[in-house]
Amino acid sequence: MNIRKLEDLLKKVRSGKTSIEEAKAQLKSLPFEDLGYARIDHHRSLRRGFPEVIWGEGKTPEQILSIMKQMKGKGQNILITRLQPEKAKTIQKSFPKSRYHPQSKVLTYFTHLVKYEGKGTILVITAGTTDIPVAEEAVVTAQFMGNRVETLYDVGVAGIHRLLSEKERLESARVLIVVAGMEGALPSVVGGLVDRPVIAVPTSVGYGTSFGGITALLAMLNSCASGVAVVNIDNGFGAGYIATLINRM
Amino acid sequence: MNIRKLEDLLKKVRSGKTSIEEAKAQLKSLPFEDLGYARIDHHRSLRRGFPEVIWGEGKTPEQILSIMKQMKGKGQNILITRLQPEKAKTIQKSFPKSRYHPQSKVLTYFTHLVKYEGKGTILVITAGTTDIPVAEEAVVTAQFMGNRVETLYDVGVAGIHRLLSEKERLESARVLIVVAGMEGALPSVVGGLVDRPVIAVPTSVGYGTSFGGITALLAMLNSCASGVAVVNIDNGFGAGYIATLINRM
Amino acid sequence: MNIRKLEDLLKKVRSGKTSIEEAKAQLKSLPFEDLGYARIDHHRSLRRGFPEVIWGEGKTPEQILSIMKQMKGKGQNILITRLQPEKAKTIQKSFPKSRYHPQSKVLTYFTHLVKYEGKGTILVITAGTTDIPVAEEAVVTAQFMGNRVETLYDVGVAGIHRLLSEKERLESARVLIVVAGMEGALPSVVGGLVDRPVIAVPTSVGYGTSFGGITALLAMLNSCASGVAVVNIDNGFGAGYIATLINRM
Amino acid sequence: MNIRKLEDLLKKVRSGKTSIEEAKAQLKSLPFEDLGYARIDHHRSLRRGFPEVIWGEGKTPEQILSIMKQMKGKGQNILITRLQPEKAKTIQKSFPKSRYHPQSKVLTYFTHLVKYEGKGTILVITAGTTDIPVAEEAVVTAQFMGNRVETLYDVGVAGIHRLLSEKERLESARVLIVVAGMEGALPSVVGGLVDRPVIAVPTSVGYGTSFGGITALLAMLNSCASGVAVVNIDNGFGAGYIATLINRM
Amino acid sequence: MNIRKLEDLLKKVRSGKTSIEEAKAQLKSLPFEDLGYARIDHHRSLRRGFPEVIWGEGKTPEQILSIMKQMKGKGQNILITRLQPEKAKTIQKSFPKSRYHPQSKVLTYFTHLVKYEGKGTILVITAGTTDIPVAEEAVVTAQFMGNRVETLYDVGVAGIHRLLSEKERLESARVLIVVAGMEGALPSVVGGLVDRPVIAVPTSVGYGTSFGGITALLAMLNSCASGVAVVNIDNGFGAGYIATLINRM
Amino acid sequence: MNIRKLEDLLKKVRSGKTSIEEAKAQLKSLPFEDLGYARIDHHRSLRRGFPEVIWGEGKTPEQILSIMKQMKGKGQNILITRLQPEKAKTIQKSFPKSRYHPQSKVLTYFTHLVKYEGKGTILVITAGTTDIPVAEEAVVTAQFMGNRVETLYDVGVAGIHRLLSEKERLESARVLIVVAGMEGALPSVVGGLVDRPVIAVPTSVGYGTSFGGITALLAMLNSCASGVAVVNIDNGFGAGYIATLINRM
Amino acid sequence: MNIRKLEDLLKKVRSGKTSIEEAKAQLKSLPFEDLGYARIDHHRSLRRGFPEVIWGEGKTPEQILSIMKQMKGKGQNILITRLQPEKAKTIQKSFPKSRYHPQSKVLTYFTHLVKYEGKGTILVITAGTTDIPVAEEAVVTAQFMGNRVETLYDVGVAGIHRLLSEKERLESARVLIVVAGMEGALPSVVGGLVDRPVIAVPTSVGYGTSFGGITALLAMLNSCASGVAVVNIDNGFGAGYIATLINRM
Amino acid sequence: MNIRKLEDLLKKVRSGKTSIEEAKAQLKSLPFEDLGYARIDHHRSLRRGFPEVIWGEGKTPEQILSIMKQMKGKGQNILITRLQPEKAKTIQKSFPKSRYHPQSKVLTYFTHLVKYEGKGTILVITAGTTDIPVAEEAVVTAQFMGNRVETLYDVGVAGIHRLLSEKERLESARVLIVVAGMEGALPSVVGGLVDRPVIAVPTSVGYGTSFGGITALLAMLNSCASGVAVVNIDNGFGAGYIATLINRM
Repeated sequence: MNIRKLEDLLKKVRSGKTSIEEAKAQLKSLPFEDLGYARIDHHRSLRRGFPEVIWGEGKTPEQILSIMKQMKGKGQNILITRLQPEKAKTIQKSFPKSRYHPQSKVLTYFTHLVKYEGKGTILVITAGTTDIPVAEEAVVTAQFMGNRVETLYDVGVAGIHRLLSEKERLESARVLIVVAGMEGALPSVVGGLVDRPVIAVPTSVGYGTSFGGITALLAMLNSCASGVAVVNIDNGFGAGYIATLINRM
Repeated sequence: MNIRKLEDLLKKVRSGKTSIEEAKAQLKSLPFEDLGYARIDHHRSLRRGFPEVIWGEGKTPEQILSIMKQMKGKGQNILITRLQPEKAKTIQKSFPKSRYHPQSKVLTYFTHLVKYEGKGTILVITAGTTDIPVAEEAVVTAQFMGNRVETLYDVGVAGIHRLLSEKERLESARVLIVVAGMEGALPSVVGGLVDRPVIAVPTSVGYGTSFGGITALLAMLNSCASGVAVVNIDNGFGAGYIATLINRM
Repeated sequence: MNIRKLEDLLKKVRSGKTSIEEAKAQLKSLPFEDLGYARIDHHRSLRRGFPEVIWGEGKTPEQILSIMKQMKGKGQNILITRLQPEKAKTIQKSFPKSRYHPQSKVLTYFTHLVKYEGKGTILVITAGTTDIPVAEEAVVTAQFMGNRVETLYDVGVAGIHRLLSEKERLESARVLIVVAGMEGALPSVVGGLVDRPVIAVPTSVGYGTSFGGITALLAMLNSCASGVAVVNIDNGFGAGYIATLINRM
Repeated sequence: MNIRKLEDLLKKVRSGKTSIEEAKAQLKSLPFEDLGYARIDHHRSLRRGFPEVIWGEGKTPEQILSIMKQMKGKGQNILITRLQPEKAKTIQKSFPKSRYHPQSKVLTYFTHLVKYEGKGTILVITAGTTDIPVAEEAVVTAQFMGNRVETLYDVGVAGIHRLLSEKERLESARVLIVVAGMEGALPSVVGGLVDRPVIAVPTSVGYGTSFGGITALLAMLNSCASGVAVVNIDNGFGAGYIATLINRM
Repeated sequence: MNIRKLEDLLKKVRSGKTSIEEAKAQLKSLPFEDLGYARIDHHRSLRRGFPEVIWGEGKTPEQILSIMKQMKGKGQNILITRLQPEKAKTIQKSFPKSRYHPQSKVLTYFTHLVKYEGKGTILVITAGTTDIPVAEEAVVTAQFMGNRVETLYDVGVAGIHRLLSEKERLESARVLIVVAGMEGALPSVVGGLVDRPVIAVPTSVGYGTSFGGITALLAMLNSCASGVAVVNIDNGFGAGYIATLINRM
Repeated sequence: MNIRKLEDLLKKVRSGKTSIEEAKAQLKSLPFEDLGYARIDHHRSLRRGFPEVIWGEGKTPEQILSIMKQMKGKGQNILITRLQPEKAKTIQKSFPKSRYHPQSKVLTYFTHLVKYEGKGTILVITAGTTDIPVAEEAVVTAQFMGNRVETLYDVGVAGIHRLLSEKERLESARVLIVVAGMEGALPSVVGGLVDRPVIAVPTSVGYGTSFGGITALLAMLNSCASGVAVVNIDNGFGAGYIATLINRM
Repeated sequence: MNIRKLEDLLKKVRSGKTSIEEAKAQLKSLPFEDLGYARIDHHRSLRRGFPEVIWGEGKTPEQILSIMKQMKGKGQNILITRLQPEKAKTIQKSFPKSRYHPQSKVLTYFTHLVKYEGKGTILVITAGTTDIPVAEEAVVTAQFMGNRVETLYDVGVAGIHRLLSEKERLESARVLIVVAGMEGALPSVVGGLVDRPVIAVPTSVGYGTSFGGITALLAMLNSCASGVAVVNIDNGFGAGYIATLINRM
Repeated sequence: MNIRKLEDLLKKVRSGKTSIEEAKAQLKSLPFEDLGYARIDHHRSLRRGFPEVIWGEGKTPEQILSIMKQMKGKGQNILITRLQPEKAKTIQKSFPKSRYHPQSKVLTYFTHLVKYEGKGTILVITAGTTDIPVAEEAVVTAQFMGNRVETLYDVGVAGIHRLLSEKERLESARVLIVVAGMEGALPSVVGGLVDRPVIAVPTSVGYGTSFGGITALLAMLNSCASGVAVVNIDNGFGAGYIATLINRM
């Protein structure tokens, strides 16, 4: 039942065409999203600039293209994550203006300009150079969602002076995303240097007992620095998303 | 070397009492925190209302009392986490005005009123009643750090209507802390209902394959809802702290 | 908004006291459980004989007694699981007619006779004698919920003839609950002998690499016999509950 | 010793050709399956419509074809699970009327019509679109075994209204199979909404700490909703099988 | 149906009192253990000197005493493993001639002399002194079951000469049980020195990453020496049992 | 220093050519294997028919051929395990009379007939058909080392009658090797039926929570049947080797 | 056979009292430690000042006292690790001059002065105050073994300036032992600041996902800084021991 | 700010061109590495012969070549680890004088002769032949960094005499690197035979429960021999690096 149907029902109640008992029965089992819940949701998405995000993994190019056409039709910007290069090629034939970011395996397509709604800068930091693909997923996501983003790469704790010499940039960011594999120590050090929320992203970079990112994840969850929260291994998108929510506040 | 000493040195350089070579040598090995880094740190702590927090576990009452006296002397408010009841008793003999929260095992002592610096409300939600002690650690921490806090307890996903009927409270919060043990599903549902950052706290509530909170932790890290970040198992304090950082923005 | 309020609203719409626009607005944010969802839930519980079940762990005797008094007031039967003996003692002072099952740590209190709604017999089987406490939790739960229950204890696979000699009882059961620790092999063997759903319950019985029931759980999940589904370690209650749902069909 | 041989023996006892001692000796070591145990098993399979199921993994196309020919000769319907596409191609050359389901990697071949013996509908639900292949294995299995099956896909908990709007379909199902990867929360929510047995199937969908389905599995085992039992990761077949057993009751 | 009943049935068949059809029906569902399977089992136990073994853990002293009295009545020797000292005290009041081994927590009671059926010597070796309790469980078990047992304690691999100097004793044993915690390396070294089967027993001795014996277990399973098989952590009894089976050959 | 050199030294001592001090010094640092330890080892290998076994994994065909030529030169029989088919092809060009077993990935080459030194039969049992490659590694190993081997395949516990009907073969074996993946229950059942040592071999057969054989391994270590010892996952060779040691006794 | 016996034998060979054949036989089976291997070991221990170390866990006070008396008799210094306070009390009654370190649970007893053989200073660093007991075990061990030891406590990475301000002390140490629990990041930072070997000691300090030190251990093994090696969780003794070996070089 | 700039500033202070306040401000925020910290770091690298090491994994040949050219320009020697053969080919086109070690996947390029700064010999030992690639990474690293290196391969504990016969080489080494997979026992045995620091390197050699090196790692961490420290699985480079630090002492 949508708003129009609800209006009809109420009119019929007023006119006496529908009895109060009957109306009660209809309203009692009312699927609430038909009452606008989902629609409000929908409005919110358009109003706030959070279009749908497509998780590219496990979807065929055809499925993705079909979703993209629907979204394009509604005038939405499109973000696809975890998209393999071959799939991207297929998609770019139909969407030649889309842009594929090979490092982060993200594809973006814009129907309209992104409005900067983030109030400050999100700083994305990595421990090593091999963490950059995950960091870039966060960067593209945060930019797509209307944030100014800066990056500070390869400042891992084994050469702590590389990080400390950038104290000013650390302090001028409003939200920090810290991406690290191996021993995952960087968010603890960053968290001790700033007064801002730190979103820690473990990466699957490493070998042996790095266990595909578990070691970095555990280290981040056990951070002795306060002000650090963690997302899933390699989840640059998730970090960019929550950083956006925070940066809009 | 503190600022006064630095000033002295520079004066001696100007007056010629200290040669440039000698000054260079002294400045080269300058412990940078003496240049004010740590002091700035210290100032920040006083200025922003983040006094020291004492981790009560593994410290004797004597050690804790000694730290408390120093802090009281500086006029700081005091927060002690993970303090066993017997230790609290000993401490309250010396600090009779302190308040012990037995559920969350937190002790607070105030030398001055807390100033509300959080811009909105932090809503702390639990899945079950046994998750409340961890939630209360977050509540007391967030209040101690100057936030208005509301709670919504026992709204786990097995009775989803309990949560949905509180949609308005969910939507009016600025930051949400969601505390859950067992299958840890609540942050995913909450994250899907709100546009605000959700800090998820897994608890060690459960038995068998709950593995002391690991299951809840993993579920939260894998949340299909965007906008969720996670802290360590039972880490109510950490959730309250990062929620504070966000709520000040 | 409950049904009475809804009726009032509809009457006001009919009489013109409330405009259609206003009614629409009120109904749009209608908390759906107030529309009877929760109430239907409540009715269902009374109608089908599934009173509330109290998880005794992590609740004080006072909290439990308070819930029990409410339930008794509504004429409901009461089942409390995972109740430590000392707590049971306290409770039995106020509820002297309640019965405590020390093996399974379950307490039952009846305000009215249980109606047998289960259509057949639930057979509860254990591999060893040390699995019996978990089995008994399933037995008491299933009986409490209106099932005829039989037991077949200590028929583990190391003496397979003990099980095979009871083929008739296995075949006459409508649902089977198989409880085993250690290597957890029994559900696979039982599942190969019967045409009925088998609910497997791993127990924490064992030592060393039994890992508190994980080995039994894994073995059950990997059962080469079809028709086996698994619940959490030591979760006799859960097995009794789903067996009840099946036996009513 | 089969029934015919047993009859011969008994006749010889009656006629005195075989002494009681000798008969005792022969019967004492009687391999019981020769007494009809295996045969009854065989009869049961034919009578109840549960033909053999072939696990395609680790078998060569030749081995599979040989089994299929035997089964076809006996007039049985054939279900092969976990069959790679290349193997399916080979098989379909010999069995051109067989049908291969590429999503679920299941092949079916019918020698006779399936009789609907399931009393109600089995509803198969997924959290996401990438869980559908596992769900389809359950769907095909349940249909093959004589059930009416409905599906409700992509109703994960991050958009809880998608699920809640289908309350009627949830409530009209007799058995529910809930398939989910990532945080595996959906069975808990579904289990809280219905009075019917819920078979939860964790899938290996996800990345990082989803650990190939372990997180979903653990979450399901720890479900705070009663009435949920779990099968192995990606085990759509097992879920369809036990749901069939239940739906026949 | 036992042998007497079978005889009765056959007599009735001969005499015509029971029809062949009826006899067939009775024999078809014949519980095979009644046909002597269990009895043979029983005979074997008496004949070969393997009386029942009682697992003391999780049984009350009353339950244990009841089993012991039955066994004593049948003239069997009794072995109880994993028996806590307090339980042993209670039991020894009723069985004053029983012997309790406090290190290995084993209790033995003899109604008759043990006959040496083991053909050679079982040598029980430990890496350290803290492994001795587990080793003693193996020693008492093997002696109880009729073996000559020698011991070689505290010959861990960090002082390899301690082991090598006992080469003759190693070579004169027929079966070797090697008990080790921590890094569990001893069975590999022993296995490389002898031509006899080595039963490796990991113990829970150690701390930190010894993980209660898991490290030792894994090391033993990965032994680069051939001729090593492994039992559960701390399972001295199991090692003694299988060593007995081998030593009788 | 070998025996000849020792003799020389002693002669020189006797003749006075070497002083006692000098002899002491030489003997004190005597590499003991030169005293014959390694040689005895060598003799033992030739005398008992245990030629070297080559682990094919991680060796190039060239390395393997070089070892084989040395061994062939000494008249030894050769067993190579875990040899990939492509490597086998290369090897068979130089050793055309060698035999490659593709299922078990074992290659054998005989310079002389194997002498049957095993006193009885080793019975190799599998739970399923996909366990056969591992079982065959045990079979070939045991035959190579001079045992009579029988096999009993596909008798898993879900159809327990398949196993029970072979009771006689079970009982006539001297050593049993039981190979199973998935839930790994078969060794427990077999161990309860026989009086002989059972060597359990977990296989990596299965999916999801079979965890590449860990579940089967854990189940076997926790066997409720006595008389079972376990080797590494997929270690058919190890099982064949220790079974050989036992069967020679 | 010790050196004296060897001398006797050689003399008898020279004198002809023992034939060469007989001498060969005796020498061939010569337990090599009797040839001085163990004794050299013993000499080395006395010469280099490494007396025996007693692992106190799992030994009774009586056992420990007996070992101590033997050692005292030989004039050795004594170090006992992991000694519970109650045991220490008992021991100090017999050894009143011994010193018990309650934090590190180490007991020392000196029969002679320790000679400083370490060439430089060992610096022991902790991340937090709760790591100090483990650090102290390393300190006492290293001092006992003849090293000059300095400490630098509570300089965890969340306040990185605390560490950096001590750069000179870091650089003047010859070997560094870094002790940390929780996220275990400190050794990586220290390893990046110095040119000396860093021995990392994970501690079991933490809660939730610190997993009793596993997280710290994994982080240390994955250190992005070169020059770091790791010992077992809480193994302060082991760190002190290897640091001693290095410091003597 | 570098030393020259600092000198300028001080001169301006002396001359009065810069006020004391202004100088204070500049010095207070002085990036400490500009004060020479990083430069000292840089100098140290040149002076001590530790050029940069490039981790080849996850870098493109182009990225690596760019780094190499910079380094060559500065006259540094170059070491690249974990470099896949195809990448090495590309690199060797531009650096034809570089040498690729295919076993260890290490590439070296020398602009100047390595100076032997290690004071003694580093002995690299392996348990098996398949451990050699990891060992070679340690060998090449240690040689590159100026050490004399010897090797002792395939002396695993299952044939302990192979190791013992090399006692002299063991004792003459100054640092020992022990590389082992499977049960990882070798470092414990070596650690018991020598007085020198042992760096243990677990390798991923093995199958089944070797878990890609975890078993070896755990065994090494639990070594009953003192004087052993451990690096990450397959981390030959790390072992070579810390051994170098020790060997320079």
